[in-house]
Amino acid sequence: MVILDLVNRLLDGDKRACARAITKAENNEPGSIEILKEVYKKTGNAHIVGITGPPGGGKSTLTYRLSKELSDRGKKVGIIAIDPTSPFTGGSILGDRIRMNKLSTDPNVFIRSMGTRGHLGGLSKATHGAIKIFDAFGCDYIFVETVGVGQSEVDIVKTADTVVMIMVPGLGDDIQAIKAGIMEIADIFAINKSDLDGAERTAGEIKMMVEMGTVEKKPPILNVIASQNEGIKELLNEIDDHKKYLISSGELEERRLARLRLEIVNLIEEEIKSRIFNDKEIYNLLDNILKDVYNKDIDPYSAKDKLFNAII
Amino acid sequence: MVILDLVNRLLDGDKRACARAITKAENNEPGSIEILKEVYKKTGNAHIVGITGPPGGGKSTLTYRLSKELSDRGKKVGIIAIDPTSPFTGGSILGDRIRMNKLSTDPNVFIRSMGTRGHLGGLSKATHGAIKIFDAFGCDYIFVETVGVGQSEVDIVKTADTVVMIMVPGLGDDIQAIKAGIMEIADIFAINKSDLDGAERTAGEIKMMVEMGTVEKKPPILNVIASQNEGIKELLNEIDDHKKYLISSGELEERRLARLRLEIVNLIEEEIKSRIFNDKEIYNLLDNILKDVYNKDIDPYSAKDKLFNAII
Repeated sequence: MVILDLVNRLLDGDKRACARAITKAENNEPGSIEILKEVYKKTGNAHIVGITGPPGGGKSTLTYRLSKELSDRGKKVGIIAIDPTSPFTGGSILGDRIRMNKLSTDPNVFIRSMGTRGHLGGLSKATHGAIKIFDAFGCDYIFVETVGVGQSEVDIVKTADTVVMIMVPGLGDDIQAIKAGIMEIADIFAINKSDLDGAERTAGEIKMMVEMGTVEKKPPILNVIASQNEGIKELLNEIDDHKKYLISSGELEERRLARLRLEIVNLIEEEIKSRIFNDKEIYNLLDNILKDVYNKDIDPYSAKDKLFNAII
Repeated sequence: MVILDLVNRLLDGDKRACARAITKAENNEPGSIEILKEVYKKTGNAHIVGITGPPGGGKSTLTYRLSKELSDRGKKVGIIAIDPTSPFTGGSILGDRIRMNKLSTDPNVFIRSMGTRGHLGGLSKATHGAIKIFDAFGCDYIFVETVGVGQSEVDIVKTADTVVMIMVPGLGDDIQAIKAGIMEIADIFAINKSDLDGAERTAGEIKMMVEMGTVEKKPPILNVIASQNEGIKELLNEIDDHKKYLISSGELEERRLARLRLEIVNLIEEEIKSRIFNDKEIYNLLDNILKDVYNKDIDPYSAKDKLFNAII
């Protein structure tokens, strides 16, 4: 009853109901699965845009500008910012989220920061849940913003409908290596801070990499200066063009199936974890097995088999 | 027979057998579990040191200097570098790994780069496998080097025996936020490039954060200049002091139990994934369910239950 009421209010566009539902989903509260089951029926309209790139690349500023522009056009926007937060406290110090506060007064833009919360009800589950809720809430665009490293984080962003990869002129070696690692998932390259020295060289390097690549649709490369609102409209045009391409080529269905596949596999993992950590008997069994493994009475692989059989 | 031969050779210190075993474990080749079961009996002597920090912080250079110093003291060192690599190709462009090549001629230092390989036989399994093999191979120290972001990556580094957190003076907002997210897992802070402007301020900030923290053993804060080999011996002393503390306080057992717990839970997840992707019937079932989910005939959460029941 209460759940259905919450769902109806969020479908009606009630901002507080939307926030409440996301919190419930993120914290894995009782009723959250019922909410998500209900809202799922109303999803599929939002275009999911992954925004990724190296730390210091200006992802938040760019997301802010894109959202502002869309809001001015009367579009409703959801932003999900994935933060690498403390595995101990679950808290996060949100450096440049502060800038995001400018948007919090915009009636068309809705922002949510996600912590990476260790094992119970993980990051992927929470993010997929938030995407669904924003979608059913009526968002036309949902931006999923994450630093471009980490296996779980890359998995999430690469299953967006459109992936915008932010690059910056003149970053160090280490950062270049990170970029290289996930460049293949980009649908659009945005060279931010392109008034800085080396922007042309960076564009040239990306162009070369794109031309050597094997993907059918070569991603466009744009110059933007997010802090000065330059190139934002052009970037939005490219995002919309990519959306049209996805629809006409049939790739949209393919991507969304891939996203669902990832989500369902992750849900199964979470189910297993919750069975281990919430079932007292199994948790005690794990504790005992761990001591045996530590003492070398059994190896971790046989221990896994033993525990696995107890779970199923 | 062949497996036992490989294990015996690696236990005897055969470098090629060691490399071979790690490759098998990383690629989840047939026989890899048998190898790991065998080597597990011979583990427990190596001290596992996690090296983490923001991109551009000089992790590889510092790891290089530490390893060189240990080698000079007659110690055997294993290095596992976790790279955020392409989720598509599995390949990686190893920017500053090139520097590591200086070490590859050192007979006491053994280096391994790990890719993050999507779903089959994941990163955590491969890294834990490599740690075991290096340990049984006779390494006195094993460095696990990773950029300090990403849920899986943080999970791995935080279960090391000793965690060294590298900081650098004067990094941007975005990077500060990342640091903040994982600062609580540091056992030792190393401010690298401490000849740069702002080193004192950075040290002051860390000191304040440490003093406000709730951990019992306050982590020491060291100034180092890895590129000039300054502060390396002092850092090694701190690592050894921490090791002594772990043993005398009983925390070493606690940490190793936590590492085993993480490993076993991850192994169970991998088992589930391999059952989904390697069992043709289940894979087909997933494909069919996905279409139903896509068409909204069923929601992802009920789909998960259906698939879960088919697996067990």
